[in-house]
Amino acid sequence: MAERAALEELVKLQGERVRGLKQQKASADLIEEEVGKLLKLKAQLGPDESKQKFVLKTPKGTRDYSPRQMAVREKVFDVIIRCFKRHGAEVIDTPVFELKETLMGKYGEDSKLIYDLKDQGGELLSLRYDLTVPFARYLAMNKLTNIKRYHIAKVYRRDNPAMTRGRYREFYQCDFDIAGNFDPMIPDAECLKIMCEILSSLQIGDFLVKVNDRRILDGMFAICGVSDSKFRTICSSVDKLDKVTTQAVLLQTPAQAGEEPLGVGSVAAGGRYDGLVGMFDPKGRKVPCVGLSIGVERIFSIVEQRLEALEEKVRTTETQVLVASAQKKLLEERLKLVSELWDAGIKAELLYKKNPKLLNQLQYCEEAGIPLVAIIGEQELKDGVIKLRSVTSREEVREAGRKTFNFYYGYFIDYYWQKWPDTTPFTYKALGA
Amino acid sequence: MAERAALEELVKLQGERVRGLKQQKASADLIEEEVGKLLKLKAQLGPDESKQKFVLKTPKGTRDYSPRQMAVREKVFDVIIRCFKRHGAEVIDTPVFELKETLMGKYGEDSKLIYDLKDQGGELLSLRYDLTVPFARYLAMNKLTNIKRYHIAKVYRRDNPAMTRGRYREFYQCDFDIAGNFDPMIPDAECLKIMCEILSSLQIGDFLVKVNDRRILDGMFAICGVSDSKFRTICSSVDKLDKVTTQAVLLQTPAQAGEEPLGVGSVAAGGRYDGLVGMFDPKGRKVPCVGLSIGVERIFSIVEQRLEALEEKVRTTETQVLVASAQKKLLEERLKLVSELWDAGIKAELLYKKNPKLLNQLQYCEEAGIPLVAIIGEQELKDGVIKLRSVTSREEVREAGRKTFNFYYGYFIDYYWQKWPDTTPFTYKALGA
Repeated sequence: MAERAALEELVKLQGERVRGLKQQKASADLIEEEVGKLLKLKAQLGPDESKQKFVLKTPKGTRDYSPRQMAVREKVFDVIIRCFKRHGAEVIDTPVFELKETLMGKYGEDSKLIYDLKDQGGELLSLRYDLTVPFARYLAMNKLTNIKRYHIAKVYRRDNPAMTRGRYREFYQCDFDIAGNFDPMIPDAECLKIMCEILSSLQIGDFLVKVNDRRILDGMFAICGVSDSKFRTICSSVDKLDKVTTQAVLLQTPAQAGEEPLGVGSVAAGGRYDGLVGMFDPKGRKVPCVGLSIGVERIFSIVEQRLEALEEKVRTTETQVLVASAQKKLLEERLKLVSELWDAGIKAELLYKKNPKLLNQLQYCEEAGIPLVAIIGEQELKDGVIKLRSVTSREEVREAGRKTFNFYYGYFIDYYWQKWPDTTPFTYKALGA
Repeated sequence: MAERAALEELVKLQGERVRGLKQQKASADLIEEEVGKLLKLKAQLGPDESKQKFVLKTPKGTRDYSPRQMAVREKVFDVIIRCFKRHGAEVIDTPVFELKETLMGKYGEDSKLIYDLKDQGGELLSLRYDLTVPFARYLAMNKLTNIKRYHIAKVYRRDNPAMTRGRYREFYQCDFDIAGNFDPMIPDAECLKIMCEILSSLQIGDFLVKVNDRRILDGMFAICGVSDSKFRTICSSVDKLDKVTTQAVLLQTPAQAGEEPLGVGSVAAGGRYDGLVGMFDPKGRKVPCVGLSIGVERIFSIVEQRLEALEEKVRTTETQVLVASAQKKLLEERLKLVSELWDAGIKAELLYKKNPKLLNQLQYCEEAGIPLVAIIGEQELKDGVIKLRSVTSREEVREAGRKTFNFYYGYFIDYYWQKWPDTTPFTYKALGA
């Protein structure tokens, strides 16, 4: 093992040498020679049998959300949830899996895309395929005949999606539905209004709403003389032409004048499903429903692309102030102050170092986009003040609190957070906020 | 089928008769007689074979969240997320399932509680068991050596939990972790501070924090003369005594003076795990980590119980105003006004009826806790005004806008929303908000 450690050290040093040469833009010959040495050393080292080999990946069709992607996701959800709440919706949640029989017979051909759980004894379970069937199960189970609710959650489909176009096997749906017996078309109209409000607020460009009703098609066929027995077959063929589901409302954003390689396609859809709840009710009691679903994954992709294009820095934390010190041995005082600030509701951080350099602390602020630094030193402690500094303008103020740190500093920092114009340096221009 | 429909109608009528008698508090004999008739009719009707028989339930160990429960959940999450953000945390998310091999060998005996997905071709997958292992996988996969993040998501354990005590097979974890090489104990101390801040903010009563370090125990054993070979066995026995994991920090709320039958137990836990990320890194590079996890399901139970005890009404929507009319044929005008209000950012609703009665509209407000009604009638339309009424105080004001509805009404309503004291009738006293 000692020999191995020595070899590992050599590989590391040689690797550093190669990186150094590349940075200095050394001659290709020289780099090649040193890379050769590195490869030889690595071959000598061989694989490390003591380490287990892991495939470091997420399952096919899934992804992690990085803090940057989460910032986009939160922004998009915020727009959508505010709209749903504006329309008086309640919110519910259901488990990620359902009894297999709850989902059976609801998705026709697509049933083969349902993820089943392994039979480990007990009930047979499947991951939810959408939020509509669990909603209908919820209504029937609780004998509800009347609710306006939204539900935002991940659903699962064993599809072979094009992930570059924002399609996944695990993906979010944002559903809004109105269940109940109401006068015709009033809830349907509200669903359309909600779609338009959300797509407008998200500022992802112009969009086109396609509205249809199966009964219009039925009427056209009747006039054409299509016999009753052929109705269903012909309807389904027409459906396939445009991928429009029966009695559905479909929204599409047009491919943006050809300049974007990303074909956006449908970003929202919805429609009426008056028969579904009755399939769950033991007595077959129907609860008419109408709803819509926002295809947020595609919207995330559009917004992320836009942020890339704008080369805009996105803050992934909300920290207002870093508690810093220019001198050594002040860890305890920094901890006291940062605690005071947390208790006063101020978003604050400190470096996890006993004696950090002031330069490093300022650098951290610049990297993380933290706009303010509260600096304490021997003098400040003696005078019972803190020094507050704006990271970008370098403006400084000193403020006297009581001798012991207290809530007062919270208000002081909050005041400058509001006052200095550079305190929110990074915004989401792409989202118009 | 026609005969069946007639029988169903009879059952329905007889059912109504029985309910009516009960309401009128008719004699027990009479009710019994009529119930007898009802049962006979039902027996005649028999089961409806045309309906599929569904077991209407959620899988064992899971539950739906009703709007009321969601209101509690959102409130609790809000407190927790605000605290995590106050401490400068970023946020990430990972898929609900991982490659089976990612989870293998991480949970010892408890591995048998992992939910596996059925092998439907492709990768072998398992539902996440906690958020810590996916976090370590995320760090290793992205070669991150330094991050402070939180993650709130559901995890899955095939346990036999006591559901009445707030334990489920699908349950939320709220994790905050600090990864990176830092000076000793500074991030650890912040984790403790965060736990205390959250449990204090939630106002769920006094709590006791137990802090331990395996090395203290090691020292005690050394002094007692425990031989090296017996260290591990004895440690694990001691662990089981108090269900404390190695090098863990555990929080417990004491059973509240015996008056609450609910034994609360541990509501938060945390600790250091310096070796986990290295298990994923191909070169075994270590990233020291420390973190905490809030047991929110128990906290939900405590808050829900408290709300029950207070018999407090909880609003499950945020609607500020109902657009109503006292006269018929004003659907279109109601739709126009409510659209204006939505566009102005006002949370508004209308009844989905062409010609609703004013009484029904006011009743709806009372049930849903909507504080304001905007009333339009022929006279208001002629004068170009709306009438705004406070549901509880019955106070009324009239406001002139332009002849066509416009944003102005939004500001008008917002003004009274702020001004009238009864506009937020239901609060969460139990959560101190």
